[in-house]
Amino acid sequence: MRDLNAVSRIGIGDHGSVTRLVFSIKELRSRQLLIHLMRQAGLKIHIDAIGNIFGRLDGSDPKAPAVLAGSHLDTVIHGGKYDGPVGVIGALEAVRTINENHIPVHAPLEVVCFVGEESSRFGFSTLGSSLVAGELHLKDLTNAVDPQGTKLSDVLSSLGISQPGLRRLARAPKSLKAYLELHIEQGPILEGKRKRIGLVTSIAAPSRFKVIFRGQADHSGTTPMGMRKDALVASALLIAYVEKVCQKYSSMDRGRVVGTVGAMTIEPGVINAVPGKAELSVDIRSTSAQSKDRVARMVKDRARAIASERGIRVEVLTIRDENPVPLNKPLLRVTRAICDEAGIDYEIMPSGAGHDAMQMAKITPAGMIFVPSRRGISHNPLEWTHPADIALGAQLLMKTIIRVANEPL
Amino acid sequence: MRDLNAVSRIGIGDHGSVTRLVFSIKELRSRQLLIHLMRQAGLKIHIDAIGNIFGRLDGSDPKAPAVLAGSHLDTVIHGGKYDGPVGVIGALEAVRTINENHIPVHAPLEVVCFVGEESSRFGFSTLGSSLVAGELHLKDLTNAVDPQGTKLSDVLSSLGISQPGLRRLARAPKSLKAYLELHIEQGPILEGKRKRIGLVTSIAAPSRFKVIFRGQADHSGTTPMGMRKDALVASALLIAYVEKVCQKYSSMDRGRVVGTVGAMTIEPGVINAVPGKAELSVDIRSTSAQSKDRVARMVKDRARAIASERGIRVEVLTIRDENPVPLNKPLLRVTRAICDEAGIDYEIMPSGAGHDAMQMAKITPAGMIFVPSRRGISHNPLEWTHPADIALGAQLLMKTIIRVANEPL
Repeated sequence: MRDLNAVSRIGIGDHGSVTRLVFSIKELRSRQLLIHLMRQAGLKIHIDAIGNIFGRLDGSDPKAPAVLAGSHLDTVIHGGKYDGPVGVIGALEAVRTINENHIPVHAPLEVVCFVGEESSRFGFSTLGSSLVAGELHLKDLTNAVDPQGTKLSDVLSSLGISQPGLRRLARAPKSLKAYLELHIEQGPILEGKRKRIGLVTSIAAPSRFKVIFRGQADHSGTTPMGMRKDALVASALLIAYVEKVCQKYSSMDRGRVVGTVGAMTIEPGVINAVPGKAELSVDIRSTSAQSKDRVARMVKDRARAIASERGIRVEVLTIRDENPVPLNKPLLRVTRAICDEAGIDYEIMPSGAGHDAMQMAKITPAGMIFVPSRRGISHNPLEWTHPADIALGAQLLMKTIIRVANEPL
Repeated sequence: MRDLNAVSRIGIGDHGSVTRLVFSIKELRSRQLLIHLMRQAGLKIHIDAIGNIFGRLDGSDPKAPAVLAGSHLDTVIHGGKYDGPVGVIGALEAVRTINENHIPVHAPLEVVCFVGEESSRFGFSTLGSSLVAGELHLKDLTNAVDPQGTKLSDVLSSLGISQPGLRRLARAPKSLKAYLELHIEQGPILEGKRKRIGLVTSIAAPSRFKVIFRGQADHSGTTPMGMRKDALVASALLIAYVEKVCQKYSSMDRGRVVGTVGAMTIEPGVINAVPGKAELSVDIRSTSAQSKDRVARMVKDRARAIASERGIRVEVLTIRDENPVPLNKPLLRVTRAICDEAGIDYEIMPSGAGHDAMQMAKITPAGMIFVPSRRGISHNPLEWTHPADIALGAQLLMKTIIRVANEPL
C-alpha cells in the first residue's frame, strides 16, 4: 500500500483524481519510481524500445521460460489510483516477498509494466503489450494524434524512440511460461455478490461504431412538427433501442451483452434550432463473439430503419471490431485450486473491460485475478478497493506465480 | 436588392454564410452602411443610446405620431442574408420610394434598425427593441456574457455606451402611430401553400427550460445493463416524448405547438463510459399560452417520471417563460384590404419565431408581413427568398405605410 500510494501521488489532482496520460511527464515519473522500487527489490531491469519495463528475478534455471506478472501505470484523464498500479505493484510485492523469503522458484520471474494500456490519449489501448505480443504494426501508429493535435510519431521521436526499433520488441513465445495480471474489477459484480476474488475466464471485446444521422437543421419556432427532419430525435430512438436490445441479451447464457452510447454530438446544437446532424458512438461488448456481432448488427439495422422511416440519411462507420479473448484454462485451474485450498470464496467471471492480458494471451498462457471495485466505479476519482482485498489479491497472485514457476502447466 | 447585397457582403464567410454578431466589427460596419444609405435617401438620422438607428422622413404634420418600419441587421453565427436585412432595407426602399415620388403622407415615417435582435451572442434576443419598448431592465444585462467570456457590460463600456443612459431610450407611445415589419417567414408554410405573402396574426412565444439528468458514470464494459444509471438513455426517452406530445398538439385548433430539444451535452462523453450526466435544452412554442404551458408541464412531468422510474436525479431549470404576443387587428385589416385590392394571394398565419415586432407591440399597434423562405430554411447560409417576393413584400409594406400614415387606424 505504501508503494501504491507513492505511485498515486504522481499526477494527483482535484478530488483525489489521478491523471497520468501515456508519455506525459507524470507518467514518465511513475515509471522512474517503479524502476527505483524494482532496483531496491533486487530485480534486474530491462526496458524495451517502447518503454515497457521488465524487472527480473532469476530462478534456479535461468534459461527456463519466465513467468511474467504485471499491468500498467498510465491512467485515463481524472482517473483513480488503482486501475493498473494494483497489478504492477501487486506483482512487485509478490516477487519481492518471494525474494526476501528465499522461496525457491524454478523459472525466472518478471514484473512487467506495460506502456499505454489506456486509450485516452492517442485512441490506442494496450500499446505496449500489443507490441510485445507482435500484434501492432508501425503503420497503425502513423495517424495517431492526441486531442491537443500532437502526433504519436512526434512524441516518440522527441523521446528518442526509434520507430524501426519498435519492430524488434516482440517477445519470443518460447521465452515465456505464463502471464498473470492482478486488476481491479471496474464493475459491480464482486461487490454485489460479496466475493473478494474474481477469476477471469475471458475478456469481452467491443464492437465500436459511429452512427451519423443527417436530417435538416431548421428553425425551432417556425418548422411544423410534421415537416421536421430532426437528427436528434432519430438518435434518441436508437439510444433507447440499444438499451432495450442489450437488456434482452444481458443474461450469461445469451452472452452477457452490454451496449452503450457514450459519446454524442449534435449540430448546430443551439436551443432554437432543430438538430440537423447527430453523431453517436456505440460500444457493444460480449464474451461471445456471436452475441456481440448479432446485437451490433441489430443496432445498425435499426439505425437504417429509423433513418428510412424519417426520410433522413444515416451512415454507419466501424471504429473497431474485436473478438473476445479466452484466457488460459489450466492457469485458471491453478489459481482456483489455490483459492480452494486457502478457503477463499471466489467468482468465476468474464472481464467486461479490456486489459494487457488480452494481448499477452496471444503469445502465452494468460490469467487474471480481480479484486472488487467499490460501487463498480472506475476511471473516476471515486475508484476504490479495500486494502485488505488488494492484499488478498496480491497474495493469491504470489502463490500462483510460485506454483506456475515450479510446476508444469 | 443592390442595397441588400451590399449589406450581406459585410460578414460573408464560407458557403455564402453571413455572420454579424451584435456589437462585432462586422455588425457595426453594417450599421454605418445603413446610415450612409439613409442619408443618401434624404432621411434625418437619430441614433439612440444603445445604437438603434431611426431614419425619419417628415410628413405634412411633423408633430403627428410616426409610422415606424424596420427590423434588424445583426445575424446568428453562419446565418443567411435575409433574416433581418429584408425588413430594414425593405422599409428603407419603401420610404425612399415615397420620398422620390413625392407621395403625400400626413404622419412622419421612420425607418428603424434595432440592435441585437438575435440571441446568439449574449443570450438576449430583441435587445434594442426591448429597450425602446421599456421592457428591459439594466439588471437583466449585468450577467450577460458571450461564449468567449466577454461581458456585455464591458462591451457597452468599451463602445462608450453609458448604462444609465439606456434607461432613457424607452420611446413614448404617443410618439408612435404604428410599427410595421417585413420579414422572411423562416418556415416552410408559405412555400408549401404557394403563397407569396403572409399576414401575421400573432407571435408564438417560447417556454424554454433546461433538464439535467444525473445518473452514474460507469465503465461501459464492466457495468451490467441492469445496474446502470445512464443519463443519456433517460434523455433519449424524453426527447422522443417531446416529439410525440408536440405532434399531438400540432394542429391549428390545439395551438400549433412545436417542441424541440436543440442543445444537449453529456458527461463524461467518451465512448467507453456510461453517461453519468446529460443536460438538455427544451424549447416549446405555441400561439396559445394555454397549449404551450400544458405541453411544457407534460414534458417536465415526464422528465420527473423517467428519472424516478430509473432511480436517477433530475433538475428542471426555467430559462424563459414568455407569453404569445397578438399583433394589431386593425393594422392586419389594412394590409389585408390592400392585398385584396391588388389581387395578392396571402396566408393569414402566426409567426413561430420571435421578432422585434413582439416588443414594439407592447407600446404601439404592430403588424408583420412575411415573404416565403425557400424550403423553410433560416439561420443558415441556404436561407433564400426570391427577389420578386422580396419586392412584392416591400411594395405591400410601402402601401401599408402610406395608408397608415394618412388614415386613422
